[in-house]
Amino acid sequence: MSKSSTVTVRETPAGAAAAKTGALVVHADTITIETDERIQLIDLTDRLMALVRGSGVREGIVSVWSMHTTCAVFINEAQVALHADIKRVLEQMVARDAEWLHNDPDHSDCDRMNADSHLRAMLLGHSLTAQVTGGEPVLGQWQRILMAELDGPRARTLRVQVMGIA
Amino acid sequence: MSKSSTVTVRETPAGAAAAKTGALVVHADTITIETDERIQLIDLTDRLMALVRGSGVREGIVSVWSMHTTCAVFINEAQVALHADIKRVLEQMVARDAEWLHNDPDHSDCDRMNADSHLRAMLLGHSLTAQVTGGEPVLGQWQRILMAELDGPRARTLRVQVMGIA
Amino acid sequence: MSKSSTVTVRETPAGAAAAKTGALVVHADTITIETDERIQLIDLTDRLMALVRGSGVREGIVSVWSMHTTCAVFINEAQVALHADIKRVLEQMVARDAEWLHNDPDHSDCDRMNADSHLRAMLLGHSLTAQVTGGEPVLGQWQRILMAELDGPRARTLRVQVMGIA
Repeated sequence: MSKSSTVTVRETPAGAAAAKTGALVVHADTITIETDERIQLIDLTDRLMALVRGSGVREGIVSVWSMHTTCAVFINEAQVALHADIKRVLEQMVARDAEWLHNDPDHSDCDRMNADSHLRAMLLGHSLTAQVTGGEPVLGQWQRILMAELDGPRARTLRVQVMGIA
Repeated sequence: MSKSSTVTVRETPAGAAAAKTGALVVHADTITIETDERIQLIDLTDRLMALVRGSGVREGIVSVWSMHTTCAVFINEAQVALHADIKRVLEQMVARDAEWLHNDPDHSDCDRMNADSHLRAMLLGHSLTAQVTGGEPVLGQWQRILMAELDGPRARTLRVQVMGIA
Repeated sequence: MSKSSTVTVRETPAGAAAAKTGALVVHADTITIETDERIQLIDLTDRLMALVRGSGVREGIVSVWSMHTTCAVFINEAQVALHADIKRVLEQMVARDAEWLHNDPDHSDCDRMNADSHLRAMLLGHSLTAQVTGGEPVLGQWQRILMAELDGPRARTLRVQVMGIA
């Protein structure tokens, strides 16, 4: 199993940039993913880089939005060992079986037993807004855009909106 | 007490959308809320949907920003049982009475005894940036925009800015 | 040592604002910081206010993006006592020495022993998107934009992009 972290490579460096101006362009896509496990970390970066490059926006922002309450989006490295640590710290902070009221049929009509999924997603966040420059997302060398499936397996949708100057 | 989660209903579905272009419009409002309890979760979604619909922006983003350090904004479901679980996990992660230095008059001139409030807000986040399409915020069926009062009761202000193409 | 929290003062109040329109301007800068300690909280607010004021953007948003995976950006107060509490809660939630796989040479090629840094940054977040009005960031009186060095000392870069109407 790989011990390495995936490297992000932009075509051009992302430093300071003189002001640019123009009409606003807004372009949206969706990413759909079928997850396989209850807790699963998926690297969205390559898909996102392709969407931004194809959007026509050169300078602006990109919003990556999970359409779900138990599926999170956040930045970190893509490495097998680190992802095992992420799953471990999520269980430490929010135990799966801790008599949550959301899982109690006397108090909740949700029968998925996924209180932990909601609480973990709350801590990780459901969206990211990244910068776009030179037609690509701004990401540091080791930064990857990760999705955390917290109540899988199931079908997940993220809406990606790029906004800026063409 | 209701066992259900509140459903979010947009007037039109929020999927992929062909690129749109136009002049940038920026519109801002404030939401003011008087909270009643020390820890209280409030569903802002209906207020926010009305503000975005009234803004004149069709495609773009909306920023919801808490003007405070002990009042958070985040996405999750609006359900009584889940909200009890959220309050429980906040107390587990950040105990109210744990001899925090921020509560110690020898180290801090704040007399509100609200160190826990600051730390919990730090974990939940103070703002959200959502997408706007078809003149409405993009939210999944079960997603609600929630405010967490963490040091109430008091008066709270959130600034809502919509930005995009009219 | 100071018991006070730093106050944020805008030149004009940040309330509701009638819709403004115009061409989109995008301006980017970088902030570079040499940190001195392993865990260190740095107040970026003054630097950020100067960058936004100098950007030429009057109404819009500013994105503050850490280019790293072990350096976070978040909102809270700038007070010595509170910052000691933040460091304490980070150690409570994510222990530095807990046999993380990311620190295990049999599983990971990273030799920085910084699994805790990655996990803490994941919980705090790596970026903020704030509103801009009247040519300044929108911040409440007690809100400061804080950077958390979690694996220092080292050189850190944040990219700041201002986007909106001139």
